[in-house]
Amino acid sequence: MITLDSIYRASFALKDVIRRTDLIYAPQINLGSEIYLKPENLQYTGSFKLRGACYKIACLTEEEKKKGVIACSAGNHAQGVALGATKNGIDSLICLPDGAPISKVEATKRYGANVCLVPGVYDDAYQKALQLKDEKGYTFIHPFDDECVIAGQGTIGLELLNQLPDVEAVVVPVGGGGLISGIAYAMKSLKPEVKIYGVQAKGAPSMFRSIEKSKRECLSSVSTIADGIAVKEPGEHTFEICSKYLDGIVTVTEDEICAAILALMEQHKLIAEGAGAVSVAAAMFNKVPVAGKKTICVVSGGNIDVTILSRVISRGLAMSGRTYNVTIDLHDRPGELKGVAEIIANLGGNIISVLHERNNNTDNVNACFLRLVMETRNAEHIELIRGALLKANYSIID
Amino acid sequence: MITLDSIYRASFALKDVIRRTDLIYAPQINLGSEIYLKPENLQYTGSFKLRGACYKIACLTEEEKKKGVIACSAGNHAQGVALGATKNGIDSLICLPDGAPISKVEATKRYGANVCLVPGVYDDAYQKALQLKDEKGYTFIHPFDDECVIAGQGTIGLELLNQLPDVEAVVVPVGGGGLISGIAYAMKSLKPEVKIYGVQAKGAPSMFRSIEKSKRECLSSVSTIADGIAVKEPGEHTFEICSKYLDGIVTVTEDEICAAILALMEQHKLIAEGAGAVSVAAAMFNKVPVAGKKTICVVSGGNIDVTILSRVISRGLAMSGRTYNVTIDLHDRPGELKGVAEIIANLGGNIISVLHERNNNTDNVNACFLRLVMETRNAEHIELIRGALLKANYSIID
Repeated sequence: MITLDSIYRASFALKDVIRRTDLIYAPQINLGSEIYLKPENLQYTGSFKLRGACYKIACLTEEEKKKGVIACSAGNHAQGVALGATKNGIDSLICLPDGAPISKVEATKRYGANVCLVPGVYDDAYQKALQLKDEKGYTFIHPFDDECVIAGQGTIGLELLNQLPDVEAVVVPVGGGGLISGIAYAMKSLKPEVKIYGVQAKGAPSMFRSIEKSKRECLSSVSTIADGIAVKEPGEHTFEICSKYLDGIVTVTEDEICAAILALMEQHKLIAEGAGAVSVAAAMFNKVPVAGKKTICVVSGGNIDVTILSRVISRGLAMSGRTYNVTIDLHDRPGELKGVAEIIANLGGNIISVLHERNNNTDNVNACFLRLVMETRNAEHIELIRGALLKANYSIID
Repeated sequence: MITLDSIYRASFALKDVIRRTDLIYAPQINLGSEIYLKPENLQYTGSFKLRGACYKIACLTEEEKKKGVIACSAGNHAQGVALGATKNGIDSLICLPDGAPISKVEATKRYGANVCLVPGVYDDAYQKALQLKDEKGYTFIHPFDDECVIAGQGTIGLELLNQLPDVEAVVVPVGGGGLISGIAYAMKSLKPEVKIYGVQAKGAPSMFRSIEKSKRECLSSVSTIADGIAVKEPGEHTFEICSKYLDGIVTVTEDEICAAILALMEQHKLIAEGAGAVSVAAAMFNKVPVAGKKTICVVSGGNIDVTILSRVISRGLAMSGRTYNVTIDLHDRPGELKGVAEIIANLGGNIISVLHERNNNTDNVNACFLRLVMETRNAEHIELIRGALLKANYSIID
């Protein structure tokens, strides 16, 4: 059973290993609330996972330590276990599916782990890890459903109470539930009136559904940009703790997640991964009842591929009305491009990409497609440009 | 004359206004050194400029405060003056050229300033600001060549000595020289053995040239992605202080700046603007003699347009061998695309974009261009793929 005592022990054990990440005041996230960020994306390894992994390892017996640890993950848990083991001077072996991104494999090795690439998908790697654990006597480090791991994540709760003693609400990303279980247990034990809200991606709502139905649900599939919380089934311990302590759990859409990632970049100069930004998305889009409250959003991690980040930027800009993608069905005759360009220029749209091609997909052999991308100020600006194009009888294809 | 006393006064005056930004340990920036970051991109307004502007305003007489302040800037200084004035409860007017990006104008307004858009370029806005200053009695806040402003930036030097007392070297971005003058004066006064290195963009080396020639040089033009330090002429005060206290000043290229921005994003989850990343670029590419030294790189700001960031990511990925753009001059016959795709697939390149078009630019009417972008592991991986394509007699156009 998790105890406050174990969380205090974890806090002491971790004090020279982890960064006590700053609180960052972030009023613009939601003007009706008073928002602070807990940027665990600035934690070593780029995520909070280091805390739980490291404390779990610190709890092992000398004999267990000598044999080493094993884990199965392609993400933040892998890096947490790798660095946690290295910092404790013990061996670690991480099983990954062989299709895992090169960058993740390299990062895991860099933190000192041995890596075992297993043909197949995550489940194959997981089976291999269990097999190696039995054969070699390694200790298996579960990513969330373990009381030491939960106690390690709970150290964030203690920090939050120290950093903002009059906090009224905390918003936390939820995958398997280890992070929020630790934070909720620590904070509710010390200050029961604090509200704790969980946030999941709409494409991976396993804890959300489980709490709704008051029993653990296993989803057949999950799909979200927030890969760090794309978990099919909550843990036993974590489900129990969440059922008891959470004041609510909500979901956010992919577009909301992208908008939150963009807001963190632009307003706070922070890179968050999808999973790390769901808490901010929930506060931005009023999914959680934090109006008028001193609220902390935990930004749990920042390990996002930069190529994905480029796509997130595009989507976030489009979503906030700062770019406008339009396709126009033009007649194939002189002056058409000029006409469109003139309207857009006069209204202050800044064209950044043009694709002009014959259209072979319609009956009209004289038709041409003109695809434009332009920078705009906001949604009203887009409407203005769109309206002017329609008024001039250009046919916009949606 | 700047004094240590004035920097301590600034530190006291600013203590409730600015964030005392954390130091972040960043060993991977240069494995031969021990690098820490001072992330002033996480400062309110996204840059250190708030410090100097705010302290300058705090130094005004009551009468001056009543009349308000004026500044000319399209960037970090504008936002610093705006917020600094608002926090001190006084009026501010910022002159900007009317072509300034909407996002900068909006940010300046959001921090509470009145904005005066002046037709023309920066110099026109500057003249307008001087004119309004004379007409209305506003106090003009210079972005760097002012002793109060320099003292305000010098508070960073005091913080660095507190945060890392055994620091051996500090690497600082240089535009007009206000930031490095303050830091150098504070640190050299208290710990003369600390080495202070300045870094400029190769496309805007005004302080670099001036120090080289031992007199202030005015460049006819400047061009760099690091727009925050694209200054044509150093200040009088700042040139004097830099001449006396710096242990060296170097320049970095645009590609090096992009690589540094990318490293800060990927390894440290921080968004830096070009000007903010030049210090990291200098450390990464061994432009400054910091081998074996406990070194702090000041990351001075993070206000970079996200659309520019997308381009920086692309360039940074290409520069570090993580994407490969290749154009192949194909024969226009069946099976050619398949042949190329096969070679790349077998070697593990991941194609992300294809443009296949008839080539009208050569004499050979049967020729086709095939432009490919693929994800690769590193420069050696690119060479492997390139070699295999050449070996199979595909003609690569460089």
